[in-house]
Amino acid sequence: MAPLADLYQVSMAYGHWRAGRHRAPAAAELFFRRPPFRGSFALGAGLAEGLRGLRAFRFSAADVAYLRSVLPSTTDDAFFDYLATLDASEVTVTAVPEGSVVFPRVPFLQVKGPLLVVQLLETTLLCLVNYASLVATNAARFRLLAGPDVKLMEMGLRRAQGPDGALSASKYSYIGGFDCTSNILAGKLYGIPVRGTIAHSFVMSFRCLEEVQPRDLPPRAGGDPVDLAGLAVSWLQRVCDLLQTPPSKANQGELAAFVSYAVTFPCDFQGLLDTYCVRRSGLPNFCAVALALHQLGYQAIGVRLDSGDLAQQSKEIRGVFRACGAHFHVPWFGTIPIAVSNDISEQSLEEFRRE
Amino acid sequence: MAPLADLYQVSMAYGHWRAGRHRAPAAAELFFRRPPFRGSFALGAGLAEGLRGLRAFRFSAADVAYLRSVLPSTTDDAFFDYLATLDASEVTVTAVPEGSVVFPRVPFLQVKGPLLVVQLLETTLLCLVNYASLVATNAARFRLLAGPDVKLMEMGLRRAQGPDGALSASKYSYIGGFDCTSNILAGKLYGIPVRGTIAHSFVMSFRCLEEVQPRDLPPRAGGDPVDLAGLAVSWLQRVCDLLQTPPSKANQGELAAFVSYAVTFPCDFQGLLDTYCVRRSGLPNFCAVALALHQLGYQAIGVRLDSGDLAQQSKEIRGVFRACGAHFHVPWFGTIPIAVSNDISEQSLEEFRRE
Repeated sequence: MAPLADLYQVSMAYGHWRAGRHRAPAAAELFFRRPPFRGSFALGAGLAEGLRGLRAFRFSAADVAYLRSVLPSTTDDAFFDYLATLDASEVTVTAVPEGSVVFPRVPFLQVKGPLLVVQLLETTLLCLVNYASLVATNAARFRLLAGPDVKLMEMGLRRAQGPDGALSASKYSYIGGFDCTSNILAGKLYGIPVRGTIAHSFVMSFRCLEEVQPRDLPPRAGGDPVDLAGLAVSWLQRVCDLLQTPPSKANQGELAAFVSYAVTFPCDFQGLLDTYCVRRSGLPNFCAVALALHQLGYQAIGVRLDSGDLAQQSKEIRGVFRACGAHFHVPWFGTIPIAVSNDISEQSLEEFRRE
Repeated sequence: MAPLADLYQVSMAYGHWRAGRHRAPAAAELFFRRPPFRGSFALGAGLAEGLRGLRAFRFSAADVAYLRSVLPSTTDDAFFDYLATLDASEVTVTAVPEGSVVFPRVPFLQVKGPLLVVQLLETTLLCLVNYASLVATNAARFRLLAGPDVKLMEMGLRRAQGPDGALSASKYSYIGGFDCTSNILAGKLYGIPVRGTIAHSFVMSFRCLEEVQPRDLPPRAGGDPVDLAGLAVSWLQRVCDLLQTPPSKANQGELAAFVSYAVTFPCDFQGLLDTYCVRRSGLPNFCAVALALHQLGYQAIGVRLDSGDLAQQSKEIRGVFRACGAHFHVPWFGTIPIAVSNDISEQSLEEFRRE
């Protein structure tokens, strides 16, 4: 892991070494002054990674050669020889169990060992524990606000600080109370449940129903395949009549994308509602395909909203689902899960709870 | 690099594959809607990493086995066989040169190739380009505010999203206009200049001058070593007289730390002023050691402030340096560089410019 450190750790190490204090017993404590997110607590996390960092702590010959090129030319050669002998075998770590609730100004990790090594480990440990604790804390706060039943999914891969930032976010969100991640690698490496259905790009890649191929789906209970596209078109008319919205405003490419996805994943159909107009296109198209699927014995798993006023729209969508469920005598329709994404914050979670 | 992707890329890929559209020609464009930091531009960066991601794009047997365990059991086996054959050899990328100024809603990277592969590459490329561009943009904005002469140093390793987040921050800050980093690994891997002197922990590890060992320093021009601690103590009295502050308020551990560091790095002595009281301890102690060094022919490289009102304190410190320089006839003292760290923002840079 070395040299995952700030250069000043090495200059100070040289200072300690020259003063003959490099093996003096030292203890360093990790704590925070203010809890993140204007809160009152944090979760301490990242311990396993920190311990791996300690075990891997060692300066290779190349590391030492690099440091020699960076420190002043007056630096004593024997110091570099000494660096090459170091490891963390004399270091002991005491810490709260991974994911514990921790409070400001109360140390949650203590490192003891020879002064020089403890000094050199500081940045490594901070780097591995700080972000882990921050993300776990954020996840726990979201979980507290959302309550125990809401599903929380982490999908930050594209915005993270590169691959391992994203993996840390997936892992420590899960530790903090999230249910799943969009990140395949996090699922593969850590066994975190992964989820995902479709994006706007999939919806936009279709222009008309003629592009849907294959379009036949056998009923769930068995029997001859049925043309799902044709079935969805007839349902769209009935849904639009009920919702008093013109079928011509329902985007045909979107309907095609929904049908195509539903034929492919009949037991896992989720509609992404906001590629075009939610009320006049996304929602009628989804209801049409979901009702067509229902006619064949399948149940849609939900919808997703990715823009706009999520709380307000969710309320309207819930109303439409209830109306459809009652009108078409499909009881489960009223409780179709509504997923929201895009800038979910503590504030938006609170708004949802109020609605 | 695969599977650095969100799961929905794979579900959509299956949708495209089943519809026989997996090899349809596709183009995806990367752009942003709003510039970051309420600004009007961004720097496009991360291209080299993106291209490496493309070259490495491949599903291993283990990746495919994992995806098989995650997708619905009805998924066609032939799809997984197809995934195992994929690479990005049919993909072409067009992009602005690394670090170019880019504007909202103007694509700065275009990916062309078979629909399914282009789809699967989306998250990988976003992950590698988004943060790189964000950090480079931030650095460029800091550089514009600070002007061409101020030195800007990145020292975010301990707060980054793990090791590679930190490395990206170092690299793209440098591309955006920073001068150096504290991150040794970034220096070693990318050739970015690294800097660093001492932290508060070094200052706090000393309690009194008796702990300083060795304390003798030969004059720069050669000759018998002189006890720098004794010399600094006599200078401290003179400095305190000038500044009208009691020598008893100058922390002895801090003085010891400064002397120890100055003996170790006589050509690179930087004082960290705010472990104790800046005005009555850090500043007099620094001036005493810097003047003692000066007497032996060495020139201190500067001071660092890491807390409090940085702009206001810098002004006061500059005044003290000028007074010392004039009083003790040491012309370079008036222009000693003052480094500031801790929460440096665009706003604080503007405050500095105003002062």
